[in-house]
Amino acid sequence: MSKKKRNVIVGQSGGPTAAINSSLAGVYRTAKDRGYNKVYGMIHGIQGLLEGKYTDLSEHLQTGLDIELLKRTPSAYLGSCRYKLPTINENKELYDKIFNILDDLEIDVFIYIGGNDSMDTIKKLADYAIISGSNIHFVGCPKTIDNDLALTDHTPGFGSAAKYIGTSIKEIIRDGWSLGIENGQVIIVEIMGRNAGWLTGASILAKSEDCDGPDAIYLPELPFDVDAFVAKCKELLKTKQSVVMCVSEGIRTAEGKYISEMGSTSDYVDAFGHKQLAGTAAYLCNVVGKELGCKTRSIEFSTLQRAASHCASRIDILEAFECGGAAVKAADEGDSGKMVVITRESNDPYSAKTEVKDVHKIANDERLVPREWITKDGTYVTDEFVQYVRPLIQGDVAPIMVDGIPRHLYKPGFQDELA
Amino acid sequence: MSKKKRNVIVGQSGGPTAAINSSLAGVYRTAKDRGYNKVYGMIHGIQGLLEGKYTDLSEHLQTGLDIELLKRTPSAYLGSCRYKLPTINENKELYDKIFNILDDLEIDVFIYIGGNDSMDTIKKLADYAIISGSNIHFVGCPKTIDNDLALTDHTPGFGSAAKYIGTSIKEIIRDGWSLGIENGQVIIVEIMGRNAGWLTGASILAKSEDCDGPDAIYLPELPFDVDAFVAKCKELLKTKQSVVMCVSEGIRTAEGKYISEMGSTSDYVDAFGHKQLAGTAAYLCNVVGKELGCKTRSIEFSTLQRAASHCASRIDILEAFECGGAAVKAADEGDSGKMVVITRESNDPYSAKTEVKDVHKIANDERLVPREWITKDGTYVTDEFVQYVRPLIQGDVAPIMVDGIPRHLYKPGFQDELA
Repeated sequence: MSKKKRNVIVGQSGGPTAAINSSLAGVYRTAKDRGYNKVYGMIHGIQGLLEGKYTDLSEHLQTGLDIELLKRTPSAYLGSCRYKLPTINENKELYDKIFNILDDLEIDVFIYIGGNDSMDTIKKLADYAIISGSNIHFVGCPKTIDNDLALTDHTPGFGSAAKYIGTSIKEIIRDGWSLGIENGQVIIVEIMGRNAGWLTGASILAKSEDCDGPDAIYLPELPFDVDAFVAKCKELLKTKQSVVMCVSEGIRTAEGKYISEMGSTSDYVDAFGHKQLAGTAAYLCNVVGKELGCKTRSIEFSTLQRAASHCASRIDILEAFECGGAAVKAADEGDSGKMVVITRESNDPYSAKTEVKDVHKIANDERLVPREWITKDGTYVTDEFVQYVRPLIQGDVAPIMVDGIPRHLYKPGFQDELA
Repeated sequence: MSKKKRNVIVGQSGGPTAAINSSLAGVYRTAKDRGYNKVYGMIHGIQGLLEGKYTDLSEHLQTGLDIELLKRTPSAYLGSCRYKLPTINENKELYDKIFNILDDLEIDVFIYIGGNDSMDTIKKLADYAIISGSNIHFVGCPKTIDNDLALTDHTPGFGSAAKYIGTSIKEIIRDGWSLGIENGQVIIVEIMGRNAGWLTGASILAKSEDCDGPDAIYLPELPFDVDAFVAKCKELLKTKQSVVMCVSEGIRTAEGKYISEMGSTSDYVDAFGHKQLAGTAAYLCNVVGKELGCKTRSIEFSTLQRAASHCASRIDILEAFECGGAAVKAADEGDSGKMVVITRESNDPYSAKTEVKDVHKIANDERLVPREWITKDGTYVTDEFVQYVRPLIQGDVAPIMVDGIPRHLYKPGFQDELA
């Protein structure tokens, strides 16, 4: 006779995306479908849980409409965190504390939606479960606009960010045509992605029958040369009045110096020791303006590219939902220390499935854009790149509009705690 | 017996919007409906026309689908310009040159779609027509995201920009909730509008049942005090982890110094002597970060706010189309030296009509946000402001999606000339 199912807990971690809440919705739906009692949400991930902060998701998701709103809500609905667990050797007491909290909540299944750093958390907790003889199952659900997780074809969140970037770059290019500007203009667009150029490469999606696309694309996978960049702008200005260059926030010289550091005075570093980057495009605009005497404009997508639910990809939102469900299913069927991955079966027509893989093979391993998907001269991405990303931006998710603006899921009182 | 109708010419001028091409479509449709022979488009406005650059719009608009695509295409389809006509006394030869070109093209009707500077062009050309005994009718069609034209309730282009700003600010606010950040964070969003705060005020549209809206809003209509701004951030951080401040690019001190000039080294000035502004938010972030020791993030909407056709307001696109048609109708019925205006008849339910007014009363007169629509302490806009702007963002215009990205109108060969 099977044991009575108890509770599920789910957390969100790392930078938010337009699809992370669709995964949360998927976790909730499948947990309920599979007969779990309560589905708890950690508030601000494992960091909040350690402070006793959690919520019963059934108070938030009372109707089918609530689920649909959650799928269309950007940012981490439950609040996120950037909290790195110490190793088990470093602080066994902390692990005992977490497991005591989970036992008090009668947790059977622990799902963490996040990227590389979050999968590190799943790995450590799953390891400790084995050591300590706990029966809790720990499964990771992939999430990151950066698309840099190993072993999965792509990550939920990437497709929507790519769709927003392609759409916006196309509008920026078109806007650049409008005014005939003496000596021309160079527009430099800075796109997120510290080490992986997937999002910057997605700017090529602007290229279509009605648009030439960006004039050049610089990924962080290759060393960046400021002089060569200026020379490229100069060459392009010979035949075009308006030049659009797309650069990753993470581009750096052959010596490893970030371009953003050249003009910035900020020393802000996050909890993982990642330096806060800002101003790559602004710095390059300064240089280009001075060297070439043309008008320049720097554009940063900033958090818009990860929060633009109004421009989400249907494929992305659906896959995010499926990944959340697949995580619960895997844990329910006995898996632990695993992450859900998406495996592509075909490009055209697009077909993909979810599987689970060992999280020990994933954590802290960044998947970069393959060298052969970047052109030889390092200033563009190839057709293979386009064939890879194009299926992931297909279809739209109509926002639920109220009084002219998209509605998001909101529970009075709850969000005040986050904000 | 009525004279056989000859040709119409239409130009686009000033900063582009998401709706300016819908006005162009309206001009074309009504000109054809009213029996005009050809509809020419000036390439890069009057500046291009002076160089003999124009195109026959029937080559671009061959089907109903082309018209629909044009309504959804951002930027000035024909190319725009910032060209200030000299006074008639200063350069009569230039006026003769323009009228010779128009006579050669057998023009009866001249429509110029633009803002304050463009209406100055209509005024001067209409005056010269009277002086020189020309029968050409000159009518202006309003356009500007800045919403600063006199005598009209609002301008086409404003509603779509306001909808984009409201939507994006809401997503940015939500994104700000996700990470619990030690010492809090201040996000400063910089919005277009040199002297008029209509667009910055539109950030209040993010405020709704599911969102508190921005924490403070600073319009250029009132003097800006950096110390008071920092104090406001400090006060807000006492109760919130994530603070979102919206500022106009044009805010300046009581002495008239632009905040953007405090941190910027750019001296770029456009043809009208307007200083190129950049970096207001970036400068304020620097100050706030240093003074309060919190994380900061500056976000500029840049050209995205005027080019985001994918997020256009249906009311705006329809009204822009109607204004284009009304301009042709007015000229066809004998008006000249006039501009189409939108007159609001009712807020709820929203109702408005087009009329024509004397362009001499409009040109170079900026309509600012009334003082009573800004709160006493100058850090927010009032309910009256919301009641004014809310009707203008209603309804959506679904982009025509091809392969996951919005399609725009494109004629091979033509756009190469612009870009």
